[in-house]
Amino acid sequence: MPLAEHRTGTYDDTQLYLEIQHFYGRQMRHLDSGAVEEWALTFTEDGVFAANAHPEPQRGRAEIEAGARRAAAQLAAEGVQRRHWLGMLQVDPQDDDTVLARTYALITSTAQGGQAEIRLSCTCDDVLVREDGRLKVRHRQVYRDDLPTGKGE
Amino acid sequence: MPLAEHRTGTYDDTQLYLEIQHFYGRQMRHLDSGAVEEWALTFTEDGVFAANAHPEPQRGRAEIEAGARRAAAQLAAEGVQRRHWLGMLQVDPQDDDTVLARTYALITSTAQGGQAEIRLSCTCDDVLVREDGRLKVRHRQVYRDDLPTGKGE
Amino acid sequence: MPLAEHRTGTYDDTQLYLEIQHFYGRQMRHLDSGAVEEWALTFTEDGVFAANAHPEPQRGRAEIEAGARRAAAQLAAEGVQRRHWLGMLQVDPQDDDTVLARTYALITSTAQGGQAEIRLSCTCDDVLVREDGRLKVRHRQVYRDDLPTGKGE
Repeated sequence: MPLAEHRTGTYDDTQLYLEIQHFYGRQMRHLDSGAVEEWALTFTEDGVFAANAHPEPQRGRAEIEAGARRAAAQLAAEGVQRRHWLGMLQVDPQDDDTVLARTYALITSTAQGGQAEIRLSCTCDDVLVREDGRLKVRHRQVYRDDLPTGKGE
Repeated sequence: MPLAEHRTGTYDDTQLYLEIQHFYGRQMRHLDSGAVEEWALTFTEDGVFAANAHPEPQRGRAEIEAGARRAAAQLAAEGVQRRHWLGMLQVDPQDDDTVLARTYALITSTAQGGQAEIRLSCTCDDVLVREDGRLKVRHRQVYRDDLPTGKGE
Repeated sequence: MPLAEHRTGTYDDTQLYLEIQHFYGRQMRHLDSGAVEEWALTFTEDGVFAANAHPEPQRGRAEIEAGARRAAAQLAAEGVQRRHWLGMLQVDPQDDDTVLARTYALITSTAQGGQAEIRLSCTCDDVLVREDGRLKVRHRQVYRDDLPTGKGE
């Protein structure tokens, strides 16, 4: 197929693009199922989770895990299932052996016996690194579409 | 790109992950367009479709096709277009030459002249096998987020 | 993994499928961020953008760019962020060295300080070609699910 033969990009690019999709599939399932230790392990030890909805970022795995644990407990108490969808992935390798992975994020929310609904639309900009063969998030910046970019609530 | 060079996973993993995405793209389009015979052929002859919304699973291609035909006729009569989105794919090959493919499922519904809306948020756990070179669903388990897991409506 | 070994399809198919996903990730981000020149460059010089919501298609890059510029200005004035999600990709190479790429499209809308919501559910049928190594849209046909197929509003 000539259209494929004259392509730009390399096999490694393809492999990495897929690997990041798969990484996100597993990572967000950890979060949504309340597997908060596994969730925290998808960040580097010194990983940062920043969001324009939060005045201060979560810094380090312990803080990221603690934040997820609080959120999971509250959702469980409310009988609410959240789902985080990341999509429309754009991957840009950087000069320093990191990768900038940008996605759209759609967060749905469903209460037991209730109606599924869109909770938030966001973008998610990740700096990914590889540790012991596995991708990790070194820095995540989430921007909620309903809030001013770069400003806290 | 060093980040790609030190990756885990193999080419076959990548190939399979993509192939499953493409399989779902075609499969759910069959369902949403009312192509119920093509839909049924994406399951094995003895395929099972179970859902926590249904007291009994659909067993076998004939039953799966009949169920889709009834649903398609009702939607056509109502002038409603449903769309099934599967995403956040996680693929885990099993020891018995099957693959466990897990996705989030978002079902939208749009009436002629009406407003598009989220109908349901679910998860979908598939056991996939290969027959004559093609992927087929041997067992599908859908869980609606609004219903208790493993219990009928 | 035998399931992967006996696959149908080729490496080039996989590569192309991924490349189209990545192309859409970049393309729709151009549109949603108001980068209308970059958006227009994802179409061929004589590209066509047709939609069942519009009586006439946009013909050529200049018209496509002008249309996006008007829409971006209006959304900026209203303080609304739209997001175009393309998913459930189905890729069918054609005999004439083009590729038919079909997706589901979900368009979300979020006002500053407001609630994210589903705006539209559509399908998107693209004829893609390669120019100087890059994919371009030669013809796009969007069908809104709430409108009759092939008829204007």
